[in-house]
Amino acid sequence: MTQVTKIDNLDPKIQALCRSSLSAREHSYSPYSKFKVGATLQCPDGSMVSGCNVENASYGLAICAERTAVVKAVSTGVTDFLSVAIAADLKTEFVGPCGMCRQTLAEFNPDMTIYLVRLDGMVQVTNLNILLPGAFSPKRLTLEFHNGNTKVEK
Amino acid sequence: MTQVTKIDNLDPKIQALCRSSLSAREHSYSPYSKFKVGATLQCPDGSMVSGCNVENASYGLAICAERTAVVKAVSTGVTDFLSVAIAADLKTEFVGPCGMCRQTLAEFNPDMTIYLVRLDGMVQVTNLNILLPGAFSPKRLTLEFHNGNTKVEK
Amino acid sequence: MTQVTKIDNLDPKIQALCRSSLSAREHSYSPYSKFKVGATLQCPDGSMVSGCNVENASYGLAICAERTAVVKAVSTGVTDFLSVAIAADLKTEFVGPCGMCRQTLAEFNPDMTIYLVRLDGMVQVTNLNILLPGAFSPKRLTLEFHNGNTKVEK
Amino acid sequence: MTQVTKIDNLDPKIQALCRSSLSAREHSYSPYSKFKVGATLQCPDGSMVSGCNVENASYGLAICAERTAVVKAVSTGVTDFLSVAIAADLKTEFVGPCGMCRQTLAEFNPDMTIYLVRLDGMVQVTNLNILLPGAFSPKRLTLEFHNGNTKVEK
Ligand SMILES: [Zn+2]
Ligand SMILES: [Zn+2]
Ligand SMILES: [Zn+2]
Ligand SMILES: [Zn+2]
Repeated sequence: MTQVTKIDNLDPKIQALCRSSLSAREHSYSPYSKFKVGATLQCPDGSMVSGCNVENASYGLAICAERTAVVKAVSTGVTDFLSVAIAADLKTEFVGPCGMCRQTLAEFNPDMTIYLVRLDGMVQVTNLNILLPGAFSPKRLTLEFHNGNTKVEK
Repeated sequence: MTQVTKIDNLDPKIQALCRSSLSAREHSYSPYSKFKVGATLQCPDGSMVSGCNVENASYGLAICAERTAVVKAVSTGVTDFLSVAIAADLKTEFVGPCGMCRQTLAEFNPDMTIYLVRLDGMVQVTNLNILLPGAFSPKRLTLEFHNGNTKVEK
Repeated sequence: MTQVTKIDNLDPKIQALCRSSLSAREHSYSPYSKFKVGATLQCPDGSMVSGCNVENASYGLAICAERTAVVKAVSTGVTDFLSVAIAADLKTEFVGPCGMCRQTLAEFNPDMTIYLVRLDGMVQVTNLNILLPGAFSPKRLTLEFHNGNTKVEK
Repeated sequence: MTQVTKIDNLDPKIQALCRSSLSAREHSYSPYSKFKVGATLQCPDGSMVSGCNVENASYGLAICAERTAVVKAVSTGVTDFLSVAIAADLKTEFVGPCGMCRQTLAEFNPDMTIYLVRLDGMVQVTNLNILLPGAFSPKRLTLEFHNGNTKVEK
């Protein structure tokens, strides 16, 4: 269900996506965790949107790199995503996105491809439907129960 | 990997757990979503801790039933959980916990049994390791990268 | 608008409230910040509800002591609070609740008295209407704009 | 401490800031609250960064317009802000930012000017130090207590 490969073996567009997620770590604001993360979304028109994690003295306000990228894209009118590359501060492990980010990504595309990028250039390829099965998402559920009048385009 | 059964067919202790999650919905504070959820944790000593969802005019502050139950338990010194029953406002679907709650539960036990309880008395039995594979959890990862000095007992 | 005093000079009930917030720190689950906080709510019937902060490997899921206390109380059917005492890991400064907690408290009572308790037994007395003026709260605003059908009892 | 004026009476740069916050509402993703909000930050170099609110089926993941703007700016390397304009779906009231956003803004500048923009073109001018006094911010406090090694540039 998941595979591991070198970044150089990926399709050139996906290589660019993965390298972008590595670069996005540069602006990480993480004085509390000291854990720099970058993420880049691939949009249907081929454009890419990048984000980094942004922390707060009140830890509960931390926004991960993946969610930064999502809200950036949405604020420019893009609400569909093909895939996301995520680069964290890890050398020997692959780490999936946290549950908050899986949930946020699933709002827009619960079947998104996910590239987990390690600093040594290895990439694990997986999918959001593997990492968040049975997602509580408007793309999957009839969310009419929410306040009786929620309509979300599927 | 998951199974569906009637609540009456479950072990008596688990029946009590599931019924407790249904009762916990009563105190739900959900004027915004109008979606009542209850959750009950089963602790190793046999005790149960229940919670409901608590919303806020600023939606981002909503705390789900599962997380209410977790922080209640932790505040009394309990940080290990065998299982959780979750009852939501659904009649014909089973809905797993949201990503935030999967992540919160995984902090304490990424292999917890999960009972999804429907209002008509049907229960789906699953496990957190199915719903949040590759969890970003201190029970799974070496989180020494966090600020260089995090030590979490495994 | 705020005053500082010794805990021993306060009304006996408020002394108990403040001491309870200090004790509540004991169960703090804070391996990431190593910053223990406790909070205790005073309910109209004289009862007290305590909470501690509960963190997560994904920092954005951290729930502060004040919010733990609030959701605990709500889960037992209590949604009105007279005051809250908050004890943090500080020796020489008084620190108010974070913005998330001010917002959460304001949902239920934007005019709550707040006691900031220092480890050396000094207490600063203030009020939520000072710490979060113009609160975005259903007690202050007509929140009918929320999805067109929100009704919150004032 | 706060004043109300017509948008046309403001400095041309601030007029542009306020109008930008109104435009930013256009991309709001708010199927659950149906409450569109826009926000625009003014950076020291004169540039502006805009955001809208982005909601989720799990309400707790909602990110407000102000925080969207902040993480966008930070992801491009900007971490200082002079002011912020916020436009909400209100015709007759001025509503300040929620506590989550006050806290997020205070991480970067607890003395930021805030323009609350109404749809009818009226603007209330205030300041973050009024809306979040005693902010729990690295600009105000010595946050060395956080895990013993946090250093945030002041
Ligand atoms: Zn995340
Ligand atoms: Zn949840
Ligand atoms: Zn707080
Ligand atoms: Zn906000």
